[in-house]
Amino acid sequence: MTHPQTTDPGPAVAELDTIVSLAKRRGFVYPSSEIYGGINAVWDYGPLGVELKNNVKRAWWRAMVQERDDIVGLDAGILMHPQVWVTSGHVGSFSDPLVECQTDHRRFRLDELPGGENLSATDLRDPGIVERLGLKCPVDGGPLSAPRQFNLMFKTHMGPIEEDSNAVYLRPETAQGSYVNFKNVQQSSRKKLPFGIAQIGKSFRNEISPGNFVFRMREFEQMEMQYFVRPDEAARIFEEWLPRRLDWYTRYGVNPERLRFREHAPDELAHYAKKAIDVEYRFPFGWKELEGIHNRGDFDLSRHQAESGENLEYFDPATEEHFVPFIVETAGGPDRSAFTFLIDSYREEEVRGEKRVVLGLNADLAPYKVAVLPLLKKRPEIVEIAHRLRDDIARDTMAVYDDTAAIGKLYRRQDEIGTPWCVCIDVESLEDGAATIRDRDSMTQERLPIEGIKRAILDKLSAARG
Amino acid sequence: MTHPQTTDPGPAVAELDTIVSLAKRRGFVYPSSEIYGGINAVWDYGPLGVELKNNVKRAWWRAMVQERDDIVGLDAGILMHPQVWVTSGHVGSFSDPLVECQTDHRRFRLDELPGGENLSATDLRDPGIVERLGLKCPVDGGPLSAPRQFNLMFKTHMGPIEEDSNAVYLRPETAQGSYVNFKNVQQSSRKKLPFGIAQIGKSFRNEISPGNFVFRMREFEQMEMQYFVRPDEAARIFEEWLPRRLDWYTRYGVNPERLRFREHAPDELAHYAKKAIDVEYRFPFGWKELEGIHNRGDFDLSRHQAESGENLEYFDPATEEHFVPFIVETAGGPDRSAFTFLIDSYREEEVRGEKRVVLGLNADLAPYKVAVLPLLKKRPEIVEIAHRLRDDIARDTMAVYDDTAAIGKLYRRQDEIGTPWCVCIDVESLEDGAATIRDRDSMTQERLPIEGIKRAILDKLSAARG
Repeated sequence: MTHPQTTDPGPAVAELDTIVSLAKRRGFVYPSSEIYGGINAVWDYGPLGVELKNNVKRAWWRAMVQERDDIVGLDAGILMHPQVWVTSGHVGSFSDPLVECQTDHRRFRLDELPGGENLSATDLRDPGIVERLGLKCPVDGGPLSAPRQFNLMFKTHMGPIEEDSNAVYLRPETAQGSYVNFKNVQQSSRKKLPFGIAQIGKSFRNEISPGNFVFRMREFEQMEMQYFVRPDEAARIFEEWLPRRLDWYTRYGVNPERLRFREHAPDELAHYAKKAIDVEYRFPFGWKELEGIHNRGDFDLSRHQAESGENLEYFDPATEEHFVPFIVETAGGPDRSAFTFLIDSYREEEVRGEKRVVLGLNADLAPYKVAVLPLLKKRPEIVEIAHRLRDDIARDTMAVYDDTAAIGKLYRRQDEIGTPWCVCIDVESLEDGAATIRDRDSMTQERLPIEGIKRAILDKLSAARG
Repeated sequence: MTHPQTTDPGPAVAELDTIVSLAKRRGFVYPSSEIYGGINAVWDYGPLGVELKNNVKRAWWRAMVQERDDIVGLDAGILMHPQVWVTSGHVGSFSDPLVECQTDHRRFRLDELPGGENLSATDLRDPGIVERLGLKCPVDGGPLSAPRQFNLMFKTHMGPIEEDSNAVYLRPETAQGSYVNFKNVQQSSRKKLPFGIAQIGKSFRNEISPGNFVFRMREFEQMEMQYFVRPDEAARIFEEWLPRRLDWYTRYGVNPERLRFREHAPDELAHYAKKAIDVEYRFPFGWKELEGIHNRGDFDLSRHQAESGENLEYFDPATEEHFVPFIVETAGGPDRSAFTFLIDSYREEEVRGEKRVVLGLNADLAPYKVAVLPLLKKRPEIVEIAHRLRDDIARDTMAVYDDTAAIGKLYRRQDEIGTPWCVCIDVESLEDGAATIRDRDSMTQERLPIEGIKRAILDKLSAARG
């Protein structure tokens, strides 16, 4: 294949614990419902986390929808007609092989057990596999049940009575929303092939073994784009999306040595996929999928056409042909992306004998673009200028005021949360009407007239966006 | 009370059908899963709708988080520890009075039946009320059951086994996420009282009688802000939020004559509320809640403190007191807001004997800020200039290219979706390097050098934002 798979582990990333601890302490991510002992595999984004995540979503939307003339957005419901998930194949085959220890009743995914990692898809469905390989519970060594297929969709009931006819699912992917709306979107937007539908939104999977912080959650958010193409162009267009999606991560600062492509083996392919290549990132727990790029062929639209009875063919005015489009999908998510930007930008440095922790986030992704800090909080004139400047900048972008420590400590706090610029209002500011802007990465300072600082910050921000 | 309640119906708004039809045809809102016959009370946002809704969310976030120094954001999970909903009172009392016709088995909300509209909260819980008032099925006149309290929370199961211990709920409000994270947010953001936590996110309510387009859905999105205050300041701060929230709607163009305040009667108050005043809008189906402002007292934090065993008191460094803060809540949502902006801005005019349909959306809310239109699509030089200009503007804001009709029709299409400015590239553009910008509302045109058009649009947009 044409996409080399790095085997080099690449430069080391921060420890997972370091990031989880920083995330909680500084307000990026908290364990959900913590005062009640938490809930497994759900995380809440705090004041800084929600800004980071929103910036990630906005950056993706800008690259995928706003800047392009051929992709439009959609925001379909999490709840859909239950037949959608029958047609899509999720009711029948969106499952993981579950085994249970007969003595302590712990549950495991067969393909994550020691000895099960390299099993083929066929083996994972083989009822005799556990006995044949002599697999045991990794916790207490007890005997394991034969694998059963555990469906990952969350089910609930709509309307006042709990009966099967009212059962609906929480969507396990946003993609189906784009497929069932294909005709509506195409007709109302008048787009011609090739064109895409982009969505950002929550999905839910009842994972048997979630974990690794926000990497695998039961409730998570997706950023998926479905690109509808002529069948004879699908293979070429699939290849074009590969570097485009990888470049999006490096454009926002991810170290390219920690990124690679990995092609799915034939027996690893999802039921809908003709070809699938992952963009992988080197997480602290190994190379893992950051985003998947899939050639889904005409599987989805053909199935929906057959089951719904609606004609989902496209009429090509240039060739006068009618056909069911192929779909090339790019499937990533803001949780994994934000996690990647966080961990990849984390660094520890020594500055004048002291440790400095820096999140070197791209300015466009940083929760606060600027912190306005008074050198002396006991001087009301200085505090007033600082507040006024923060309020003025905040009309255009995220800015924060802080006076709860000495200036050196305030700078360190902003370094640790990735704020690219700090403005310090000092005693001289009262006389010369100027203030210093400090750069997070170089730690250099420049002095500018206060009235020009907002413009300077906005220009730096615009340059960072590229 | 100090908030006059308008009884004047105010100026007429568009018919609901007109808006639903425009919304589908132009790609604002489609019925969910339409190819499978739809799913009740869920709607999907199309290419224009998702832009409008995102703009509404961004405008709210800017006013509530970005511009303020005392409010931070949060994005808590939809799934939370189930005990949260026991403590909050939702498991016990978040329900509507359901009655069922004994002959056709249709279900109704007792308080929406003819004869049931003005019943007190006590009456609605009275098992003998249907018989006493002689209420009948409004469809077939059949006898109705006694009311039963139908809980509105959607329930699902987390983990591989469906048993009660694994039952979790889809949150019916985002507010509880802010309460259980109160301590984490306060500690990591170092905010002092009064300060607020703002959230935007999906919530779910298994409504007995949803309807009126996106006004009442079973899956919907909220924009809620919880403001934590000293108990002795709660009444005053509650009053301050009333005009601030009403003004937010008028700032973005809603006709103030179609807005009013309405205070909840004592027996209408939710179980948590000390006082509640709605901002109401005059929808085509009557005056209805657009946003609620609530003084929740210390109900929520005291209950969570008692049930979780975590100390949720705030230490006031100024007075050295420890106390449980009161909460003033503002509870609105992007679906109802976007619907209001849509319907309120809709107008039909006669221009030179022809009907012109205009969505007079504030430019900051409009899906596209500018449409770039070639006067002649057969002239490649003109088409190329138009594409280049659109691509350049699209790096900064939403812009669309369209050449699929004559210029007059293209203008009308953009008027109907609320695009504030159209740029027409014509034959003269090839010679003078200039183009006309047409204003949606005044229909006046000005000619500007093409290289200055992007700046001019961005300046107009910034002015519209105010």
